[in-house]
This record gives sequence, structure tokens and C-alpha cells, in this order.
Amino acid sequence: MKLQFFEVKTREQVWAEYRRFAPVGLEEVPLDRAYHRVLGEPIVAVEDLPGFAKATVDGYAVRARDSFGASESQPALLAVVGDVGMGEVPPFEVGPGEAARIPTGGMLPAGADSVVMVEYTEELDRRSVAISRSVAPLENMIGRGDDVRAGKEVLAAGRRLRAQEIGLLAGLGRTKVMGSRRPRVAVVSSGDEIVPVDRAPAPAQLRDINSYSLAALVEECGGEPWRLGVIPDEFQPLRAACEQALKEADICIISGGSSVGTRDLTLQVLGSFPDTEVLVHGVAISPGKPTILVRVGDRAFWGLPGHVASAMVVFHVLVRPFMDHMRGIPPSLGGRWPLRARLSRNVASRQGREDFIRVRLQQHGEGLLAEPVFGESGLISTLVRADGLVRIDRHTEGVYAGELVEILRI
Amino acid sequence: MKLQFFEVKTREQVWAEYRRFAPVGLEEVPLDRAYHRVLGEPIVAVEDLPGFAKATVDGYAVRARDSFGASESQPALLAVVGDVGMGEVPPFEVGPGEAARIPTGGMLPAGADSVVMVEYTEELDRRSVAISRSVAPLENMIGRGDDVRAGKEVLAAGRRLRAQEIGLLAGLGRTKVMGSRRPRVAVVSSGDEIVPVDRAPAPAQLRDINSYSLAALVEECGGEPWRLGVIPDEFQPLRAACEQALKEADICIISGGSSVGTRDLTLQVLGSFPDTEVLVHGVAISPGKPTILVRVGDRAFWGLPGHVASAMVVFHVLVRPFMDHMRGIPPSLGGRWPLRARLSRNVASRQGREDFIRVRLQQHGEGLLAEPVFGESGLISTLVRADGLVRIDRHTEGVYAGELVEILRI
Repeated sequence: MKLQFFEVKTREQVWAEYRRFAPVGLEEVPLDRAYHRVLGEPIVAVEDLPGFAKATVDGYAVRARDSFGASESQPALLAVVGDVGMGEVPPFEVGPGEAARIPTGGMLPAGADSVVMVEYTEELDRRSVAISRSVAPLENMIGRGDDVRAGKEVLAAGRRLRAQEIGLLAGLGRTKVMGSRRPRVAVVSSGDEIVPVDRAPAPAQLRDINSYSLAALVEECGGEPWRLGVIPDEFQPLRAACEQALKEADICIISGGSSVGTRDLTLQVLGSFPDTEVLVHGVAISPGKPTILVRVGDRAFWGLPGHVASAMVVFHVLVRPFMDHMRGIPPSLGGRWPLRARLSRNVASRQGREDFIRVRLQQHGEGLLAEPVFGESGLISTLVRADGLVRIDRHTEGVYAGELVEILRI
Repeated sequence: MKLQFFEVKTREQVWAEYRRFAPVGLEEVPLDRAYHRVLGEPIVAVEDLPGFAKATVDGYAVRARDSFGASESQPALLAVVGDVGMGEVPPFEVGPGEAARIPTGGMLPAGADSVVMVEYTEELDRRSVAISRSVAPLENMIGRGDDVRAGKEVLAAGRRLRAQEIGLLAGLGRTKVMGSRRPRVAVVSSGDEIVPVDRAPAPAQLRDINSYSLAALVEECGGEPWRLGVIPDEFQPLRAACEQALKEADICIISGGSSVGTRDLTLQVLGSFPDTEVLVHGVAISPGKPTILVRVGDRAFWGLPGHVASAMVVFHVLVRPFMDHMRGIPPSLGGRWPLRARLSRNVASRQGREDFIRVRLQQHGEGLLAEPVFGESGLISTLVRADGLVRIDRHTEGVYAGELVEILRI
């Protein structure tokens, strides 16, 4: 009964192991299901967008030079040669001294190089219009290819698709794209003291929290959670669950390995499969030291602490970046643009260990204040009260009140 | 052919109209589908969590006072009275001078008030252990109810459920909760120049971008998008689409009303239904001025500009907060903890109008720099290049380079 770690790794060393796993691969995704997916191919425009010059206001298509010098007191008088219909190629040209009525989105007639807003025009009769303000060439219009030029790479592979990228793909006629498959993640809660949520725990028992909170995190970061529920700390049931996960999931997360008995059992179970390699057995982070990562063939098994808050912190710090890797994105902590806040009080930390402190945020003048939430890492309520995590580097002995820190949103 | 707005409203005035619409109401949601839902009921704990005192480390349950003064050179010697089994009520007590082996998560035996970590113990034989460090009462354990006390309200109605709230609900035995129904949002692209994405546009035609980008935004903010596709600018087809939306959706978004013809047609169509009220007809924001909000019975119809970037900006500034309201959350701009950045250059703005400037973010020293992305609001690529929007108040004439601004993430 002795805590044994082969070799405690730093977070960076753990991340470096991710290269051992090939990303889950691509699949064809219909565009209307592609939101939040990771693009698996570069997108090159095969045509100009828009494919024609169009008006961005309601008004009159003109040759700009015909409007030069026009003012309220000295309007320019132009001959109206036609009406541009939406979606139609105008069957006429706009010559010198001429104009054509055009609606927003209408195609500019040949000859016209700009649009005068209707607010600065007065129709004298159906065949002539007075213009009271000059326009510059290309004003109030979008040129052919102004949005995207044919031949240009508009999105690189690895891009996370937001609503605007979905819109761009639609504009380019992509009804489907190659996107990263959603990693299927089996989530297992192990422990003889854990009972399913719908059962009343006897004294000394607890309901399964981890498989629910971890499944929600899997969903949040683009995976497909598959809750296998509560498995007792026994070789056969745990092996059966792992075998099922090996067959049908890309990743398996087992929580409950904080107790040395469970962790040893987990390793024993995984060791009974062919081609098994323990990549991580202890991480220099707090909370979350007793974390394991095992490769079984091309599948990843994560053993997370049973402590409810520890399990979630480890997910944010290690498993989420792993899922990023599996989806084809470089691992990162908390995304590209983390919030920053000033710490409300001194927080001590042990050197050689990277600490992740739960914090609540508060508005404070022009910035934010991060107030540490203290409490055992076995308490889920500490995370319910928290808005984020503050990382304390393993080379420091702590952070002083007032220091600017990055917030990993949780 | 004159732009007419009954009365241009400010954003705040538009938000104030939201009270006219009752939120979509609640439904029972299974816990494993509740992530990202808005809680529709307050959650009061009916029992203590945990329901028993438990160890947070592997080690020995003791009476703390028996460890006082223990050190490596002068360990305390205790008699081992038993092993605590996971999930079991220990059938023995720990008396003075006694200890019991206990795994992480195990229930503390009666009499014990703390746990000594296994690292600071040495088993002399199966019946005695030497303790080389003292513990304080309650150390290395979680007391009964330390996470949540029975009778306490742990989550208020209106709370957005993150992974930790899902975990807490699991811990309390909630297999389902009352959550806000996902608003069903019909999305229509109108315009004679718009063709479905899978069709090659003729000259003067464009593919439908808005119904895809807006549907993705609906999904992002917890709604259920329902793309009705492209509808021509004609009374009958548009009325048929609206009628379908009225029957089967909570909200309908029609984009394409930038051209005065389309907007008038939309109003005419909506006016043909009973109990119709135009609540908003023009908003003092840029881009996005020609936005309409119409109440038809208890349903909301939004008319958004056809310009692709304008439509998305209006969604972020007006429709997203509206969807928040419909889900039971007070409207807000960009969530509770916006990023802050310094503007990279002066940006002028017209007084009386709230401007939303597209910006790219860049790391800059300890903070972020927001670089405006210029370009017509008809260009989707401007949003693809942007990371957020910066709001410029309608009472100012602009923002100077170096000023600290809030970023509405997009």
C-alpha cells in the first residue's frame, strides 16, 4: 500500500505523448451539421464570390464621373435607362449621362461603376433623376470577387468552423465538407462505493458524479460521449467494459483511480490486452497527480482521479487538449484568447508542481478580479462556485495578490 | 422607393420589447441531455452530499490527537484495528491509540476524526503502524454534507448548466431536471437573386449564405434551427413559409429585408396574419439598421438585413439576447465576462448610432490588441477574418487608438 509512480511527468511531457496517437480521421459532413467541427481539408474557392458586381444600397447605378460636383443646390441630371431586376442580368448599359434604378443586391449594368443612394436622388419623372451628391468609383457596390477570389485558399485545414465559416462555405457552394470525425469517448466510473444516479446510496456509498460531468465535457469539446456507467473494482467487469470501449470507442476515460487499489487494478486490466504501453503514470499537476494514460493498440485509455473536482480539472488540463489533438488541432490551454484577471490574494504553490487554482471572477474597475475558491478537490460544489482555473507555473512558489493571471474558463 | 422607418429604436429599446414575449417554457430533460440547457427550477438538496465522512487520501484513519507530536525521529505507534472496505460501513470503531487502514473514498470509522497519508506511515506488522507526521482534526477527509447540506438551494432557476452543475445534479440523484425548452427557430432566406447552395448561380445570382450562418448561430445559443431555405420575394410563397413557421416554430428569422421592396413585402405578408404588431422597424445600430421585429400572436418574426455580415452582427446584438430571454435568461451582450483589448487605431463613429466594429485580436505584451477589419457588410470574409466585435457607444464620436474596449466574441 504505497503510492508508486514510475516517473511523474510534467504537463508538457504528457502533451508530447499525444503524437503517439493518430487523429481520429475525417468524414464527410453535411454543411448544416458542420458547425463546431474541425475542417479536414483546405478550402480553395473555385469561383469568385460574388460572381458579379452588385449594389449594396437601393438607388441608381451610374458612372461616377457623371456625379462629380453634384450637390443639393446643383444636382446632376441623368437619364434613367431602365430598372435592374433582382437576380437578373440587366439587358441594357449605362452610358455617359445615364442612370438605372437598382435595388440592394442587384447586378450593376455594364458601364456603371458606382451606385448613388436613393436618399440623395429625386426622380423628376420615370425617365430622369436628379443626383444631389457625388459618388466615387466603386462606391456603394461590391465588385466581382471582392469577398473571395477564385483560386484562393480561404480556409486552412484545422480550422474550427464557426457560423461565419459555415456561411462562407455555403457561399462557395459546398453542401458538404471533410471534417474531423467526432471522437467517440467511453466514460466509465469505477469504484465499489459508487452507485448509479437513480439508486439511493447506502451509507458509505455515493452516486456516480464523474460519468455525467465528464460526458458533458466530452460533448463540450466536440466529442461523442458514451457513458458506460458504474463498474465495480473487479477485474472481470472492468475488463469487459474496457474491451467494449476498445471495440467501439476512440478514447476511454476511467475515473476512480485515485485509490491505489483501483489504479493498480486498472493497469492490470489494461495490461491484459495485447500491445499495451503505459505512457503516463503520474503528472506534476495539482489537483490531478494520480492520472494515467495508457496506449492499447491505437486507442487511448485515460485513468482519472476519482475526486470529482480533480477529474474535471484533469479533463480541462490534459484530456481536452488530447481531444483537440485527436480532432486535428494543436493542444492548447483554454483557447487562443484567454481572459485575464488580477488575483485577489496571495496563493502559495509548491515548486516542481503546476497548480490549477479554482477561482470566481468579479468585475473590478476596468478589469476582473479572480478570487480563489478553496476546498477539497473531492467537492463538486467548489467547481460550481468557480468560473475558471488559474495556472501557477511549477517554477514559482506562488502568485501574489494583484498579479495578472490568465483564466482558463471552465 | 424611399427608405422609411416609423421610428428608429436604440438597442436598449429593442431589448425592452422582449418582455412582450413569454419564454418558451420548460420541459423535462434527462440529465445526460441537459448540458448547456437553462435550468427551469431551483434545485434544493434533499440530502447531504456526501452522506458520510470519507477519506480523501489512502492511509490510516486515526484520532488526530494520537498523532500530535509525531515525527520521523519520534513516530507515534498505533494499533491497527481493521481495514475499511470501499462502500462499506466499517464494522469497528477507532479508539484512543488505534488506527484503521482506509482507502481514498472510504468511510471513516466511528471514533476517527482524520486520516494520515500512507506516505507518512510505516506498517510494523499487520497489527501496528508508526505515524511520522501529525494531522489536525478533519485533515485529509471530507465531512458529511461538506459538499452540499440537505435543505440548501444549490442551483437557482435560470442557471446555465455547465459540466459541473450536471455533476452536482448527478450527485444529488437527479436523473432529470426541468429545463428551458430549446426554442425552435425557422430560418428563411428571401430574395429573387438567392439560389440554394447546391445550385450553380446564374450571373446576377448568389448562393444562400444567411440561412446556413444564422442556423449555426441558432444552434450555438441553444436553439433548434429549422432551415426553410430560399423563398422568392413573392407574397404567396413568403406567406406560406411564414404560416408554416407560425405553426411549428417559436421564432422565425427572415433575412433579406435590406432591399426596401423585400422589407415592405415582409411587412405586408406578416400584416396578413391576425394579431400582428410591428414592434421594431429600424434600429440605431450599424451595421443592421434595417431590422424589423414583428409580433404575430405569441410568435416573434425577425426581419434581418440580407447583407451577410450585417445579418450576423444583428444576430449577435439583438437575436441572441432575444433567444436568451426566450430561454429564461436576462439579455446580455457577449456574456458575463467579456474579453478586453486595446484598439489598434482610431475608429470614428457617428453620434446617435451604436457601431459594432469587426476586429481581429492579436497578443500584445500582457494584453490584447484589437485591429479593425474593414470592408463592406456584404462580405462574409470580413467576419471570417474577425475574432470579435467592438461596440462603440452612440453617445461618442469614436474610440481612440489605445483605448480599452470590450470584445464581443463572434
